[in-house]
Amino acid sequence: MSSIPVQIPAYIDANAKAFVDRLARAVAIPSISGDVNNRKDVFAMADFLEGELVKLGVSVKRAKLGKQVLDGVELELPDAILGTLGSDKAKKTILLYGHFDVQPALKSDGWDTEPFVLTEDPATGRLIGRGSSDDKGPVLGWLNAIEAYQKSNVEIPVNIKFCFEGMEESGSEGLDELIEAEAKAGGYFHGVDAVCISDNYWLNTRTPALTYGLRGISYYKITIAGPARDLHSGVFGRTVHEPMTDLITLMSKLVTPSGDILVPGVEDLVAPLTEQEKARYVSLDYSVSDVEHSAGAKVALSDDKATVLMGRMRYPSLSLHGIEGAFSAPGAKTVIPAKVSGKFSIRLVPDQTPALVDPLVIAYLKSEFAKLNTKNTLSIENLHGGKPWVADPDHWNYEAAKRATKAVYGRAPDLTREGGSIPVTLTFAESLGVNVLLLPMGRGDDGAHSTNEKLDKSNFLQGSKLLGTYLWEVAKS
Amino acid sequence: MSSIPVQIPAYIDANAKAFVDRLARAVAIPSISGDVNNRKDVFAMADFLEGELVKLGVSVKRAKLGKQVLDGVELELPDAILGTLGSDKAKKTILLYGHFDVQPALKSDGWDTEPFVLTEDPATGRLIGRGSSDDKGPVLGWLNAIEAYQKSNVEIPVNIKFCFEGMEESGSEGLDELIEAEAKAGGYFHGVDAVCISDNYWLNTRTPALTYGLRGISYYKITIAGPARDLHSGVFGRTVHEPMTDLITLMSKLVTPSGDILVPGVEDLVAPLTEQEKARYVSLDYSVSDVEHSAGAKVALSDDKATVLMGRMRYPSLSLHGIEGAFSAPGAKTVIPAKVSGKFSIRLVPDQTPALVDPLVIAYLKSEFAKLNTKNTLSIENLHGGKPWVADPDHWNYEAAKRATKAVYGRAPDLTREGGSIPVTLTFAESLGVNVLLLPMGRGDDGAHSTNEKLDKSNFLQGSKLLGTYLWEVAKS
Ligand SMILES: [Zn+2]
Ligand SMILES: [Zn+2]
Ligand SMILES: [Zn+2]
Ligand SMILES: [Zn+2]
Repeated sequence: MSSIPVQIPAYIDANAKAFVDRLARAVAIPSISGDVNNRKDVFAMADFLEGELVKLGVSVKRAKLGKQVLDGVELELPDAILGTLGSDKAKKTILLYGHFDVQPALKSDGWDTEPFVLTEDPATGRLIGRGSSDDKGPVLGWLNAIEAYQKSNVEIPVNIKFCFEGMEESGSEGLDELIEAEAKAGGYFHGVDAVCISDNYWLNTRTPALTYGLRGISYYKITIAGPARDLHSGVFGRTVHEPMTDLITLMSKLVTPSGDILVPGVEDLVAPLTEQEKARYVSLDYSVSDVEHSAGAKVALSDDKATVLMGRMRYPSLSLHGIEGAFSAPGAKTVIPAKVSGKFSIRLVPDQTPALVDPLVIAYLKSEFAKLNTKNTLSIENLHGGKPWVADPDHWNYEAAKRATKAVYGRAPDLTREGGSIPVTLTFAESLGVNVLLLPMGRGDDGAHSTNEKLDKSNFLQGSKLLGTYLWEVAKS
Repeated sequence: MSSIPVQIPAYIDANAKAFVDRLARAVAIPSISGDVNNRKDVFAMADFLEGELVKLGVSVKRAKLGKQVLDGVELELPDAILGTLGSDKAKKTILLYGHFDVQPALKSDGWDTEPFVLTEDPATGRLIGRGSSDDKGPVLGWLNAIEAYQKSNVEIPVNIKFCFEGMEESGSEGLDELIEAEAKAGGYFHGVDAVCISDNYWLNTRTPALTYGLRGISYYKITIAGPARDLHSGVFGRTVHEPMTDLITLMSKLVTPSGDILVPGVEDLVAPLTEQEKARYVSLDYSVSDVEHSAGAKVALSDDKATVLMGRMRYPSLSLHGIEGAFSAPGAKTVIPAKVSGKFSIRLVPDQTPALVDPLVIAYLKSEFAKLNTKNTLSIENLHGGKPWVADPDHWNYEAAKRATKAVYGRAPDLTREGGSIPVTLTFAESLGVNVLLLPMGRGDDGAHSTNEKLDKSNFLQGSKLLGTYLWEVAKS
């Protein structure tokens, strides 16, 4: 089978201005899912997207997700937008996921430009604005690609199902239930052959990437309580068991300064490293100075690139996030806090799961706490958890994306795993039982969730071609 | 020499209402030294007190202390009120210290009554109001006693010097310099024979106390920094040295859950315990359940009363107060904080001083930090420090107070040391080179600095008698 007809990428180049304008219209809608005052804007963004899909002939179904309580206000959850384009039994069906809500942004947070005005920087070609890269650019990238097919009079070689949501930045409330229901026989998603999600980033600023793994997480809150109220260290120092002393001692038993997790059994659950897998990290376009550049300081745990990358991608990590209830303001206060809660989390990798790791953590904390011989009390809460996810990077879905990358960018993609979580990935993988591909559009320095979020214009246009070419290539598999 | 003439305590009982009314007028002036808006009230309180002293024939000198900047506003420091009553070369001269400023208080903090309206609870006899016990009650107690002598036509058997300040709750700004200057030959305080301060509390709610020791303090802030900005644990977990891991590990090396200080050499500086001194703690009217009652939980470090009391009074303590810069809010945030500062302090006892202890702490922190093998950096700041103070509890100044206690309360006082600091005590002791006595009026549950601060009416009246009787007894020494 042939390569994608050249008029399709040519159409995208020729219509760059219109596509950037449409992205600007999308960015102008402040669809912040986490702010009560912007809920109407999330609905407006759903309307906008529905309108654009309908123009392309997509049959749209809006799915109600129920209500939530946010800051004491009962709100309607933003509709998820489901869509169907094509139902040719001879073709594969690909499910595309994206989200149309965004993180909060205020100019006063430190933005150089108005966050909800898409601003093109002529010097760098950056399209700056909240949601440009996360995730309005990629969502519109799919629409750009479909329009390019249609206006070029080229038949789209796959059936497409859409699942766009408006609550991703606020925990995807209601979505898991929807996906699970629609994955069943007779459901909207039943029978899809693969999933593609464009909602993450290249490893660096140079090399396109496909992502085939995500770490899971178990987040813990351990609370040590004793005195009925905060005490003065002058009066009570060395007369009572101090919760902070107990907590700091306990937290110091969790992880070493070099990152090794001290909870017995947790590291043992990690799948063994194969030579073939190791080779993948060695081959990635990455250097230790890349990580030090993003961290802003020479603080990498190792001077070996593959070790640093594997620390992020295929080994678990334990981070101590902070303490609630202790003195945390500037200045010098001589308080003995009465009740303090340490927060830490473990990023999980195969074959770890919360179900396997949590009991190890809890048993270890209890046994170390018992050694303290304190009269204070310990309680342990698991605040949230999610399993790690790894896909087969040699699956036809990935092979199609590799060929598409080669076609658009002239080079093979980095095959990456991410250190963080995108929980919906796992929901799709488990509910549908099909391969899921993460196909990022933006670069590693886009600054999703930060001030001055941007999407490089070349990534928007080449990325739209990449998504279109992926649809072409996946049909050949 | 005889006992105090009975008409003096009788006068105090007979004028109870007038004395409580005068305390109510003092409490009604919200002389909060830490609030810019109340600075005028601190001056008003100085005027009130000067007026009352002048009525008693005291020759008053107001001492200007210069200016301060508070919350960005330049303010005149409240005048200290110096006074002289009597200059008979045949009599001893006693310097009395007290303070007329108070801690902030708002009804909305949780007070059951208006904090600046002295409210008598008929059921308990409590006089509830901000400053009732700390320190307007004791300051007016001296005035009650002097008035009782004068109205009873009994000559006061000592010369009195007064030193009342209006900045005690805000670091006594300017006072040390004043005391040091006035202690020199030709100065206002030169030649005083002893000092008496009524500004602390009984150990319990039952037994009068004399206090002959205070712990000092060294307060430290240790900062560990690495990344240029906060990082996401998904992206950076197990790729960089995390400042929190380093800090928690370092803080865990400072003190054990049973209160032992791990910094080498610090405990070795503690003066050895003698049998005679130990006996004093054994004899105090105190129980482990008293400490557990005030802490609100059964968390005492020992079941042995003397051990618990010595932990507070004659051994150093190390408390971990908190961490600045880490995640401290409710909820679950997956941050790797870039720069975190641990705050801790050591309460010092003889023969420890900040000058001896600080180098031990700093050297130990540096050596333990080096063992972490981290690329993050450590900096150590000493936020403030003060030496411990211990007086001779068998000095004639204390013997006079013991006899006065026996006369008023019919029992020997507890001889206590406090775990906290009252820095002016050390300034008087060192500048004047004389014995300083802490002679508390209120009970251990008065709640100075808390909501619903109170002074029991019986403590106000018996305490006024105690102060008057102390002046009588000290003249006999
Ligand atoms: Zn996203
Ligand atoms: Zn996002
Ligand atoms: Zn006071
Ligand atoms: Zn006070």
